[in-house]
Amino acid sequence: MAHIVVLGGGLGGVIMAYEARAAARKEDKVTVISDKPTFDFTPSNPWVGVGWREPDQIKVELEKPLAKKNIDFIPVAAAKVRPEENAVELTDGRKVVYDYLVIATGPELAFDEIEGLGPHGGHTQSICTTPHSKLAHDAFEAFVKNPGPIVVGAVQGASCFGPAYEYAFILDRELRKRKIRDKVPMTFVTSEPYIGHLGLDGVGDTKTLLESQLREQHIKWITNAKIKKVDADKVFVEEVDESGAHKADHELAADYSMLLPAFRGIEAVRDVEGLVNPRGFIIVDKHQRNPTFKNIFSVGVCVAIPPIGPTAVPVGVPKTGFMIESMTAATAENIGKLLRGEEPASEATWNAMCLADFGDGGVAFVAMPQIPPRNVNWAADGKWVHLAKVAFERYFLGKVRSGNTEPYYEKAVLKLLGLEKLKA
Amino acid sequence: MAHIVVLGGGLGGVIMAYEARAAARKEDKVTVISDKPTFDFTPSNPWVGVGWREPDQIKVELEKPLAKKNIDFIPVAAAKVRPEENAVELTDGRKVVYDYLVIATGPELAFDEIEGLGPHGGHTQSICTTPHSKLAHDAFEAFVKNPGPIVVGAVQGASCFGPAYEYAFILDRELRKRKIRDKVPMTFVTSEPYIGHLGLDGVGDTKTLLESQLREQHIKWITNAKIKKVDADKVFVEEVDESGAHKADHELAADYSMLLPAFRGIEAVRDVEGLVNPRGFIIVDKHQRNPTFKNIFSVGVCVAIPPIGPTAVPVGVPKTGFMIESMTAATAENIGKLLRGEEPASEATWNAMCLADFGDGGVAFVAMPQIPPRNVNWAADGKWVHLAKVAFERYFLGKVRSGNTEPYYEKAVLKLLGLEKLKA
Amino acid sequence: MAHIVVLGGGLGGVIMAYEARAAARKEDKVTVISDKPTFDFTPSNPWVGVGWREPDQIKVELEKPLAKKNIDFIPVAAAKVRPEENAVELTDGRKVVYDYLVIATGPELAFDEIEGLGPHGGHTQSICTTPHSKLAHDAFEAFVKNPGPIVVGAVQGASCFGPAYEYAFILDRELRKRKIRDKVPMTFVTSEPYIGHLGLDGVGDTKTLLESQLREQHIKWITNAKIKKVDADKVFVEEVDESGAHKADHELAADYSMLLPAFRGIEAVRDVEGLVNPRGFIIVDKHQRNPTFKNIFSVGVCVAIPPIGPTAVPVGVPKTGFMIESMTAATAENIGKLLRGEEPASEATWNAMCLADFGDGGVAFVAMPQIPPRNVNWAADGKWVHLAKVAFERYFLGKVRSGNTEPYYEKAVLKLLGLEKLKA
Ligand SMILES: Cc1cc2nc3c(=O)[nH]c(=O)nc-3n(C[C@H](O)[C@H](O)[C@H](O)COP(=O)(O)OP(=O)(O)OC[C@H]3O[C@@H](n4cnc5c(N)ncnc54)[C@H](O)[C@@H]3O)c2cc1C
Ligand SMILES: Cc1cc2nc3c(=O)[nH]c(=O)nc-3n(C[C@H](O)[C@H](O)[C@H](O)COP(=O)(O)OP(=O)(O)OC[C@H]3O[C@@H](n4cnc5c(N)ncnc54)[C@H](O)[C@@H]3O)c2cc1C
Ligand SMILES: Cc1cc2nc3c(=O)[nH]c(=O)nc-3n(C[C@H](O)[C@H](O)[C@H](O)COP(=O)(O)OP(=O)(O)OC[C@H]3O[C@@H](n4cnc5c(N)ncnc54)[C@H](O)[C@@H]3O)c2cc1C
Repeated sequence: MAHIVVLGGGLGGVIMAYEARAAARKEDKVTVISDKPTFDFTPSNPWVGVGWREPDQIKVELEKPLAKKNIDFIPVAAAKVRPEENAVELTDGRKVVYDYLVIATGPELAFDEIEGLGPHGGHTQSICTTPHSKLAHDAFEAFVKNPGPIVVGAVQGASCFGPAYEYAFILDRELRKRKIRDKVPMTFVTSEPYIGHLGLDGVGDTKTLLESQLREQHIKWITNAKIKKVDADKVFVEEVDESGAHKADHELAADYSMLLPAFRGIEAVRDVEGLVNPRGFIIVDKHQRNPTFKNIFSVGVCVAIPPIGPTAVPVGVPKTGFMIESMTAATAENIGKLLRGEEPASEATWNAMCLADFGDGGVAFVAMPQIPPRNVNWAADGKWVHLAKVAFERYFLGKVRSGNTEPYYEKAVLKLLGLEKLKA
Repeated sequence: MAHIVVLGGGLGGVIMAYEARAAARKEDKVTVISDKPTFDFTPSNPWVGVGWREPDQIKVELEKPLAKKNIDFIPVAAAKVRPEENAVELTDGRKVVYDYLVIATGPELAFDEIEGLGPHGGHTQSICTTPHSKLAHDAFEAFVKNPGPIVVGAVQGASCFGPAYEYAFILDRELRKRKIRDKVPMTFVTSEPYIGHLGLDGVGDTKTLLESQLREQHIKWITNAKIKKVDADKVFVEEVDESGAHKADHELAADYSMLLPAFRGIEAVRDVEGLVNPRGFIIVDKHQRNPTFKNIFSVGVCVAIPPIGPTAVPVGVPKTGFMIESMTAATAENIGKLLRGEEPASEATWNAMCLADFGDGGVAFVAMPQIPPRNVNWAADGKWVHLAKVAFERYFLGKVRSGNTEPYYEKAVLKLLGLEKLKA
Repeated sequence: MAHIVVLGGGLGGVIMAYEARAAARKEDKVTVISDKPTFDFTPSNPWVGVGWREPDQIKVELEKPLAKKNIDFIPVAAAKVRPEENAVELTDGRKVVYDYLVIATGPELAFDEIEGLGPHGGHTQSICTTPHSKLAHDAFEAFVKNPGPIVVGAVQGASCFGPAYEYAFILDRELRKRKIRDKVPMTFVTSEPYIGHLGLDGVGDTKTLLESQLREQHIKWITNAKIKKVDADKVFVEEVDESGAHKADHELAADYSMLLPAFRGIEAVRDVEGLVNPRGFIIVDKHQRNPTFKNIFSVGVCVAIPPIGPTAVPVGVPKTGFMIESMTAATAENIGKLLRGEEPASEATWNAMCLADFGDGGVAFVAMPQIPPRNVNWAADGKWVHLAKVAFERYFLGKVRSGNTEPYYEKAVLKLLGLEKLKA
């Protein structure tokens, strides 16, 4: 008998647990450790941020569905991962000993790297977690009573851009619905070298698509931007040129702002020699396995991957659902092999698939592999994207509730997009 | 009994007179003063400029239709407005005394601000008035016998750009029809900071739409342009950069040119302390009423409105039919209230709607409000725009002939565009 | 009896021979001299370069079809044209005496002007001739076994750009088919001042079309580029600014590269005083006739035409099939007139029509005339372009085999594009 512990109960962790269960032998034990009792469907956070969803609608209580699949659940945060003891130390002092550990904790949000950033003590909203999105919505409701300028974007070192565009477009849509868009100058501020870069050096012609969309919604933009600081009603931005040299300073009035922060590894793994890179992300080989501690695997946003190439302001590579799903599949197969005395052989295919919603239309893109140049490189827009996104949410929440391990992105979404046969 | 005098018999003045008549009491008297006996449908001027319309086709003799609606008509120019006497002094020495005055004189064309500009003594054509457009057409017929380079555009301080694009596209179309387009290099020169700004900081993605259209018609362009002077066969242009600093000088050969001038208030109101701003435009509050002389209102192009924001070369905000119609409606209601002892309450909604014709296709846009950010921000192109523009002309001339006061733009055009329910 | 000699058996020469035969009197003799026994269909070279066609599929043995139409054929290269002797000297020492000579030798490829350029002794591939394309394909098959970065483009002074774009898109397509596109960063390097210039200052909005297509295929680009030299695995590029001043140096890693060279006149005509310009291109008047030697005509790529306007890096004007066909028609009519004691009167209409294939879609454009501004200026993209190109190839090869002299481009292709009635 072996004990497989999955640390983290988010998109990566939950799929991981189901797939590990399916890949393991009957006698093995699978446990999920999470710092909260629920699974939150992160891709719907932008909708929570404008009130199109209540947090409850995108939450699943994990206890029951996990139990039904014979997976233990410990809703207590990890304090420290101790590889030399093969144990995870919890914040309540307990130690959970594992044979195999899969780390799927997602990111820690590095608000503290910029003065005035973030919803706790700072002046900007966040949609990175569902509770943050709830705060963002509350602040938005206060804002609409006395509307003024809005700033939305992603800071230097961010590795998640799609949701920033999405939130900007959704805010625009909601403000038009409320007939107060005319009182709200909007600016999109991003560390990307150009609009539509997305940390991926573009996907298809996302530059043209998103520039045009921003112009259509009359959202101004600043690229190659560094946020210097944020105060109660201003965002201080430095714009640099292609080479990274100073170009201009901007003081943007902002009565409401949402800026995606940079990510780093969580406290519980940071500084564990051999496990993480300097930024606290888990180092893995092509089998998702840590080279130092060979019984530790990792999936999702907490995995270390290099940036796509040099940019004037640092930007990271996003890790989206499609890619995460592929990481979990590979990891499950590899652990399955180890349990049976074989060597890991499966590798994740790093593909990106994104549905960015504009409220009534949207942009979809598929990048295979995620890092260019690519075998499949496709972007399109239309009203169907909004509908696809709603279907996506419904399907995914169903999957978590039922423990279905069918690879959703690969099967359902590609089929939806008619790209099935393009699979690279 | 009160005497309501409308000064000006153009788009604003004529609609104003009909609506004032409808809003006034039976015993009140309404008079229109105009410097000419006809109403000219200004939006068709570009067509006159290439011979697609004869001036007579877009003219309405005002005497009869006004009389039919019980409106007096004095076809004599105003020499001076004398608010302290509640009178308009005419060029024939007469004084017309009013209880309420609505100024709707449109602009004076400031050709004299640039050496060599304008059709009278200068070297450039104009399509600002129907007689100018007739001259522009005559010059065009002479030009086609010996074709060469053409320059079209709008000068520094202009506040009307759509018709310049329209005229450029229509000239291109006509030259292609005549199979001599290959002998005519064309350049579009504009004070706008970018193509498609239109004095409105763009509407939808007019930048992409119009840039692409100019490229498709092989019309080169210079933005951030100041016209230094014009001589018999050259246009001298200074191009500045974003910050307004000198970038380049261009000497553009031009065997034919049409440059929209800057506008200012007409002689008869200029320098009337309290009535006008330094440029001679009528100062009004949100009820279209002058704050100093409370029985004076103003509608149309002669109204003072601030520019949309700083630009490298100054550009003004256009006042289009949709907006003018809304001003006249508000003014009529407000005068109606005053006549009945109440206070003015109605405000114009400043929306812009424009149909720019390309001869066989066109670009339509709707901006609500006119000044961004907006609740409705919409642009599209297609062959239907040309047809819509023809329908627009027919409808409008019918309206003037019959004295119909139905709000045309709001009802008919928005319906045509399927945007009715978007009304902000 | 007169002897009409056509020098060159390519696209221009073969059509020329058929049309000269049709225009001449029964008793006149027509001879084609070519340095090879076959006609190669140059527009299919890009397909040969990726293995979509074998050289044999796009070759026609000329002996028989020419004989059938009573045209003599001498498959021996010309060593020198001797106008003062009315003779062409062959490399085997023979002299062919003519009454009328039509020079249709196409270009000599000026690989020697750049260190390391070209397939013979250099490090870059070429698709300018069918044998070069075969070499390019062989090199490509070696490359795909160990894929790396690719550079495609056109050097300073090139006058042919469409095929460079086409080859880049086709390579991308083939690499995606083989599922190794992800291992191949691609860069397009061109002397054009902007993407889509094509030596023609753009056609319709080819800038937007081709930029967008390059982004969609994730092909990076450098415009205003000069190739400094090429070594075994690097292309050294200097990028200049609008004014031609140095902007940046690039060392592009290249495991495979295809760069279209500059063209010049072939050895056999170079330095013949009065016949050629300094670059060795044949000087002709508007009747395709050399002003010094009035019994010499010229058609096709070897004709001297001035560049379209100054550019930061020199680029020439392409001569495409449509234009060449028009030159041969005019030349045949003019020689026919001379044979009957009349003066030449026919002029070529210089129109450009291009089908650039992307493997599964493509861009088509029509420019009439070729030099802007134009009466017809049209570009569009879609899957039908690929199909049209296949039809084009089939039709043209059939035409060469049968000696059909129907003007293909004007009739068939314009009809295909629905542009027949636009003929300027
Ligand atoms: C706003 C937003 C929108 C997105 N939209 C999309 C989209 O539309 N499509 C797409 O493909 N991708 C999208 N992504 C990207 C990606 O799919 C998500 O970020 C996804 O949630 C990442 O999954 P994860 O499991 O790696 O991390 P998370 O979902 O963040 O899960 C991490 C889990 O670990 C838990 N945890 C953290 N610390 C501890 C601890 N110390 N102890 C125990 N548990 C801990 C957390 O509570 C959480 O449950 C989006 C991302 C964001 C931020
Ligand atoms: C070429 C062009 C095309 C346009 N196309 C469109 C379009 O397609 N759609 C759109 O919505 N808008 C368009 N506009 C904008 C706008 O609708 C028009 O400018 C419109 O004519 C303005 O109406 P107005 O009544 O303010 O001024 P005007 O129409 O200029 O009327 C002013 C009137 O006052 C009279 N007047 C002037 N001085 C005196 C005086 N001293 N005494 C007595 N009378 C005097 C004039 O003779 C005239 O009759 C266009 C404008 C131009 C210039
Ligand atoms: C790769 C490529 C793709 C193209 N694709 C298109 C397209 O899709 N559509 C289009 O309209 N245009 C296209 N063009 C442009 C143009 O149509 C071709 O270049 C066309 O082949 C030019 O015809 P030509 O007769 O002038 O020259 P060529 O076709 O080059 O013919 C010259 C002939 O002269 C012979 N010759 C050379 N030297 C001697 C000598 N000393 N003695 C005897 N014979 C000699 C050669 O062997 C050859 O047969 C393309 C060009 C290239 C290079």
